Amino acid sequence: MVLPDFTFHVEAQEGRVRAGRLGSPHGEILTPIFAPVGTQATVKAVSPAQLADLGAGLILANTYHLYLRPGDDLIVEMGGLHSFMNWPGPILTDSGGFQVFSLAENRRVDDDGVTFKSHLDGSTHRLTPEKTIGIQENLGADIIMAFDECAEPYDRPYNELALERTHAWAERCLQAKTRKDQALFGIVQGGIFPDLRARSAEFISNLGFPGHAIGGLSVGETKAEMHAMLEVVDKILPEGKPRYLMGVGTPEDLVNGISRGIDIFDSVLPTRLARHNAAFTRYGDRLNLVNATFSRDPRPIDQQCPCYTCSNFSRAYIRHLIAAKEMLSATLLSIHNLSVLIQLVHDIRNAILEGKFREFSDSFFAQKKEIAKDDVET
Amino acid sequence: MVLPDFTFHVEAQEGRVRAGRLGSPHGEILTPIFAPVGTQATVKAVSPAQLADLGAGLILANTYHLYLRPGDDLIVEMGGLHSFMNWPGPILTDSGGFQVFSLAENRRVDDDGVTFKSHLDGSTHRLTPEKTIGIQENLGADIIMAFDECAEPYDRPYNELALERTHAWAERCLQAKTRKDQALFGIVQGGIFPDLRARSAEFISNLGFPGHAIGGLSVGETKAEMHAMLEVVDKILPEGKPRYLMGVGTPEDLVNGISRGIDIFDSVLPTRLARHNAAFTRYGDRLNLVNATFSRDPRPIDQQCPCYTCSNFSRAYIRHLIAAKEMLSATLLSIHNLSVLIQLVHDIRNAILEGKFREFSDSFFAQKKEIAKDDVET
Repeated sequence: MVLPDFTFHVEAQEGRVRAGRLGSPHGEILTPIFAPVGTQATVKAVSPAQLADLGAGLILANTYHLYLRPGDDLIVEMGGLHSFMNWPGPILTDSGGFQVFSLAENRRVDDDGVTFKSHLDGSTHRLTPEKTIGIQENLGADIIMAFDECAEPYDRPYNELALERTHAWAERCLQAKTRKDQALFGIVQGGIFPDLRARSAEFISNLGFPGHAIGGLSVGETKAEMHAMLEVVDKILPEGKPRYLMGVGTPEDLVNGISRGIDIFDSVLPTRLARHNAAFTRYGDRLNLVNATFSRDPRPIDQQCPCYTCSNFSRAYIRHLIAAKEMLSATLLSIHNLSVLIQLVHDIRNAILEGKFREFSDSFFAQKKEIAKDDVET
Repeated sequence: MVLPDFTFHVEAQEGRVRAGRLGSPHGEILTPIFAPVGTQATVKAVSPAQLADLGAGLILANTYHLYLRPGDDLIVEMGGLHSFMNWPGPILTDSGGFQVFSLAENRRVDDDGVTFKSHLDGSTHRLTPEKTIGIQENLGADIIMAFDECAEPYDRPYNELALERTHAWAERCLQAKTRKDQALFGIVQGGIFPDLRARSAEFISNLGFPGHAIGGLSVGETKAEMHAMLEVVDKILPEGKPRYLMGVGTPEDLVNGISRGIDIFDSVLPTRLARHNAAFTRYGDRLNLVNATFSRDPRPIDQQCPCYTCSNFSRAYIRHLIAAKEMLSATLLSIHNLSVLIQLVHDIRNAILEGKFREFSDSFFAQKKEIAKDDVET
């Protein structure tokens, strides 16, 4: 068996912005890329065939959720996550770190790991670096993540403590890893503190991971703070390896992240908004389709959008589905919202390959400003 | 403009069983056929693209529901039902008769029509034969239905009264109809009373409708009673016109209906069962996928089934989706259940064309018996 090659080839670079190809056992990942989130081994309301149709190239799934239900032992017995959820392309699993800190109850952290109660049934569980790597090896994603402690972004003492743990846990994750066909990415933490972020980026970079993630952002800090942290980290992380900004986000966030050296993004936002009846537009404005304004509107959500939803359905129809509580509304809005981000990143990739990212970005923010002047909903 | 030809061509006949082609403005309807129900202008949890993939050839929508929400005036403004719901193939709308009697509140029937309160908001509405034809002309389906009164099947005095109204309303519907590009079908009523069914079939047959429906069945009577009514009606209705058994049903019902001269079926059963986690098998047995038996079952619902769900997903995965309350379970089960009926009717059609319906039917019931002996869930 030829071992998979996780090498990251930078195809085009424009300052800190780059387009690349990351090898994986389930196909090349073309960057920059936006990964739809399939928390419980399904991208909510969307089938794998629909995901493939809209051009998804990487899917994320959640270790915390799948460990609790249906259990990683069941998934490995069913042939691993790709087979279980019928996604033949690349998958990334997070480590469960973020969910333990955002979802689980009665959390007790010590230097060895975290004990917590399941948000599902209150049962007690313990995650350690070794345990999360074991779970992720059972799940079998192409990219797996180190276990980290996600501190509240403005709490300096907590961030200092959490950083030490995150670093020690990163080393233990590398030690614990046994599968050769998965790439383990390290995670940089440090809240909104530039010196902590720099220290973390240096420490994590030196461990030799094939890729790096920036965690603990998009959790309540300002956009300016997020950008400042990306700039600190971007200077330190090695250029030849992919950079993943976890849990981000909006069209604007993607353009801003890519311009600060980011290659990979994921977020539940497009599918979550869809279940709350909201549609992205290309420039980040949102239409809430439950609004009576749309009840007799024959136009698609976005006349420029090539997605299945915009090619075939009116705002009036989607509003009817919402009013009638029909599940198809969540499906159609999820397809559209995911398509907006996937198309945007796809167009950005092409712009980078043509050496035109700066033009693309200038035009994006100019149009965004233009639209903000109008009332997009009328 | 060439007027659409609603002629029914019988391609093959074996006793009372036949395979045919019914012309319509949105394409030929190959019979026998099973029509998925899109009550509120959407087949619940399934997109039009998925419906087309699974070979749906005719879709039903409900006049009562669409009149109340979003309103037929809105739908006609949006270009009609085909355009509104993005279904390019043939559509059939019922008259609202059945829903007025099963769903609406504070119903008052008189010889002219029915006054009722909306089940949505309690507002008062009135449907008459003329009104329902007007609504159905706004919706613009290919096949529309006469307004009828659905009596409780065992109540003889009520059925006698309702039959007179249904017959008078059928004549008024024919009078009220103005569009030339829709076929209006008459409906035979009469509860479980052979003489009333015969009287109704004779009366309705003589009005010159291009197709006939049998209403008021599958509403609580026994299968034997349903079959007896079909046999009475089948002898009287003209052979050269299509026969539609409303609101039926299960794989077994389809085989039994076709063997008694029925060409068209519809039922919410496959999609309703799906939302209650139940899967049809080919021979009518049902698997409830919420059952823990399936949690580690790597097999598809049905190894013989060619549908998207069975080609790609295990029982274990579907059970996980149900346990995790993921919408995809309803979509995957709806696709499978619809596919079972559509494939069954498709195979029956081919058997009829080859002169082998009797063999098909014998084999179907033999296998059904065989399976009933085993425990299909183990």
